[in-house]
Amino acid sequence: MTARPLPEYLVRRYQGWRATTYAGNRPWYRRLAEEGQRPRAMIVACCDSRVHVASIFGADSGEFFIHRNIANLIPPFAPSGDHHGTSAAVEYAVRELRVAHLIVMGHSQCGGVKGCYDMCSGHAPELLEATSFVGRWMDILRPGYEALPPGGDAERVQALEKLSVKVSLDNLMTFPFVRAAVADERLTLHGLWNDIAEGTLEAWDETRAEFVAI
Amino acid sequence: MTARPLPEYLVRRYQGWRATTYAGNRPWYRRLAEEGQRPRAMIVACCDSRVHVASIFGADSGEFFIHRNIANLIPPFAPSGDHHGTSAAVEYAVRELRVAHLIVMGHSQCGGVKGCYDMCSGHAPELLEATSFVGRWMDILRPGYEALPPGGDAERVQALEKLSVKVSLDNLMTFPFVRAAVADERLTLHGLWNDIAEGTLEAWDETRAEFVAI
Amino acid sequence: MTARPLPEYLVRRYQGWRATTYAGNRPWYRRLAEEGQRPRAMIVACCDSRVHVASIFGADSGEFFIHRNIANLIPPFAPSGDHHGTSAAVEYAVRELRVAHLIVMGHSQCGGVKGCYDMCSGHAPELLEATSFVGRWMDILRPGYEALPPGGDAERVQALEKLSVKVSLDNLMTFPFVRAAVADERLTLHGLWNDIAEGTLEAWDETRAEFVAI
Amino acid sequence: MTARPLPEYLVRRYQGWRATTYAGNRPWYRRLAEEGQRPRAMIVACCDSRVHVASIFGADSGEFFIHRNIANLIPPFAPSGDHHGTSAAVEYAVRELRVAHLIVMGHSQCGGVKGCYDMCSGHAPELLEATSFVGRWMDILRPGYEALPPGGDAERVQALEKLSVKVSLDNLMTFPFVRAAVADERLTLHGLWNDIAEGTLEAWDETRAEFVAI
Repeated sequence: MTARPLPEYLVRRYQGWRATTYAGNRPWYRRLAEEGQRPRAMIVACCDSRVHVASIFGADSGEFFIHRNIANLIPPFAPSGDHHGTSAAVEYAVRELRVAHLIVMGHSQCGGVKGCYDMCSGHAPELLEATSFVGRWMDILRPGYEALPPGGDAERVQALEKLSVKVSLDNLMTFPFVRAAVADERLTLHGLWNDIAEGTLEAWDETRAEFVAI
Repeated sequence: MTARPLPEYLVRRYQGWRATTYAGNRPWYRRLAEEGQRPRAMIVACCDSRVHVASIFGADSGEFFIHRNIANLIPPFAPSGDHHGTSAAVEYAVRELRVAHLIVMGHSQCGGVKGCYDMCSGHAPELLEATSFVGRWMDILRPGYEALPPGGDAERVQALEKLSVKVSLDNLMTFPFVRAAVADERLTLHGLWNDIAEGTLEAWDETRAEFVAI
Repeated sequence: MTARPLPEYLVRRYQGWRATTYAGNRPWYRRLAEEGQRPRAMIVACCDSRVHVASIFGADSGEFFIHRNIANLIPPFAPSGDHHGTSAAVEYAVRELRVAHLIVMGHSQCGGVKGCYDMCSGHAPELLEATSFVGRWMDILRPGYEALPPGGDAERVQALEKLSVKVSLDNLMTFPFVRAAVADERLTLHGLWNDIAEGTLEAWDETRAEFVAI
Repeated sequence: MTARPLPEYLVRRYQGWRATTYAGNRPWYRRLAEEGQRPRAMIVACCDSRVHVASIFGADSGEFFIHRNIANLIPPFAPSGDHHGTSAAVEYAVRELRVAHLIVMGHSQCGGVKGCYDMCSGHAPELLEATSFVGRWMDILRPGYEALPPGGDAERVQALEKLSVKVSLDNLMTFPFVRAAVADERLTLHGLWNDIAEGTLEAWDETRAEFVAI
């Protein structure tokens, strides 16, 4: 048998949510369903279970259009006709929903970025194989690895986490509809990096060309 | 200038979160950073701003590995060497993190599914273009459209929303490492559909071959 | 003969659990067995059959390390070389498992607290005997009895139930490894009191120095 | 500051529980509060977060008086006037609540039993120190270690897990009030061992003097 019943503890938590959060906000949920979503921003974050953008930004239902993939990467514009889940999400947010902000958020201790670092420095040959989905996905971050300054491993891995944000912002600007929306001042781009242990955020500062604590 | 400072209202919310939620849980965030994540389940959900799985399931930081893309789709296994963000996320969750559950959750009023329906029924020619990322992404759901029973549009669109979950579960089983983990009883698959207006959940019941209210 | 076969109704319930809850979560149980537990919090609660913390907090297997004794008491730090079950549990949770939260939960209608009240007010001479295990255990709560404000018996008994939580929190801070973990922000302490009849929770509010409804 | 507010996700789960489980059972909770508990059995189990007796035995509020300590140990009868939390719990269950069954349940992968094994075989000198609460608590299981048959480490550790149940049953019979209740057929004793990975139970069979699968 393929699909199984939901674990009991999740059923109970869902029932609790429905009797409280949902019951107390039914009008809002109904209106969201009838009128459709109208999110103010798109957030691109990592799948990591420790990253919780909705909590950090006190988000309410309907507020953020959220795409989460490994290492919060956006590939360069490449309309090849293939399935491009991330590019589709960006296209939908910018062209259809016309979000005003597009925020890319990276984080500390990112397993995907660490894998990329190991792969590029020759310590994870399995990620080089053509059949490694994680390896091929992390190829997007290779230009980041190549731009790393010299230094110790820990330091360079953290620098690469921040570069995953910068590479994504740069790749976003290769999408004609993103470039146009930014030029028309219909969209602003933002880069963040979250330190999980310290609960801090740093933002990419274009003028100083570095990440700066908020 | 490409990247801009974070909007002030988000800065304020972040600062509030840090002084409250983070401050009250600092030991947990530090431990998560030091020991790494060990999520019990992966959840694949839609980017839609109205979908909030962490809230529905009373989730805590570190509990769920979450991938969100348009229409919660998982493409079939295709190790072509290209960037496959969704397949990379599934591979990482199953092989690296060894999650015990993989939950696919669809929802009502899904814009991506509606686009697929319109495209397949000839009412959205722009989505047929090779350059449409959304159209090419929604191609994954074509087998769902073709399996739709006759009926009114609204009814068939909702049926297609549920089929997006079923198609993803079927595609999951084309990944050798997913199939092996399910066979070895290291992984169970689960399919859910969330009615946004009513706050209800339905689960795919393999025995009855239909979605059943929880 | 000392040990007897398990009562049939428990055998049947176990078999039912195994065919349903266990069968649907086998991957998770296996992983918990292989990788070991990594609970986020320790909960100290009463043995009372009406107290059900796992249910109140929607807990999943592997989530809470739970010590239950009479009246949820923690004795003061006293490394005498004797058997100290409660101190051993706290030591294991804080030093070995490095839990991030330690929650002490008392409750209404607590028989142990009532016994302490009767003993201290001269109405339960049998509990004063050196051979009374319950009496000697409840001695831990004597400082609570002495701190009680004047009032009616029912009121004072309930105040003493809440003081059982406060006394335990104070005693926790006499353990050097607890004090160190709190100082280093590796551990936070929390005090709760559950009204069984009303299903409510009150939390010890350090700033206001009183229990406050959640 | 010593005590902190309860983590938000636990507050939300509690509110969900109150609106569902509690709201649907208010008459029962009220009656339990008014009439007092009248549990049928006492269960002595380990604090381990993976052990969930209430779930295995489909327990309802008010059904089991549950004491949980490290490695489900009961010390021998020793009315020294000191704080004996476990002996107090047994005394209260047998003399005050007059439970009909007393069930001791051990489990696989028990960290406490493993510590005892390492300590007794000379591989954990830190547990031998007078100030180690865990070490002094695990001394209760030394007679079990000494009774172990020769064999490989893994095999002997599992044998010791089962002996933790047997030693506790033997120690129970050193309490005069337990012996009297068993002799009068007011109380039966039961020994169980739970395999976490496989979800199985074995029961101590007095006649065959071994653990037998249920």
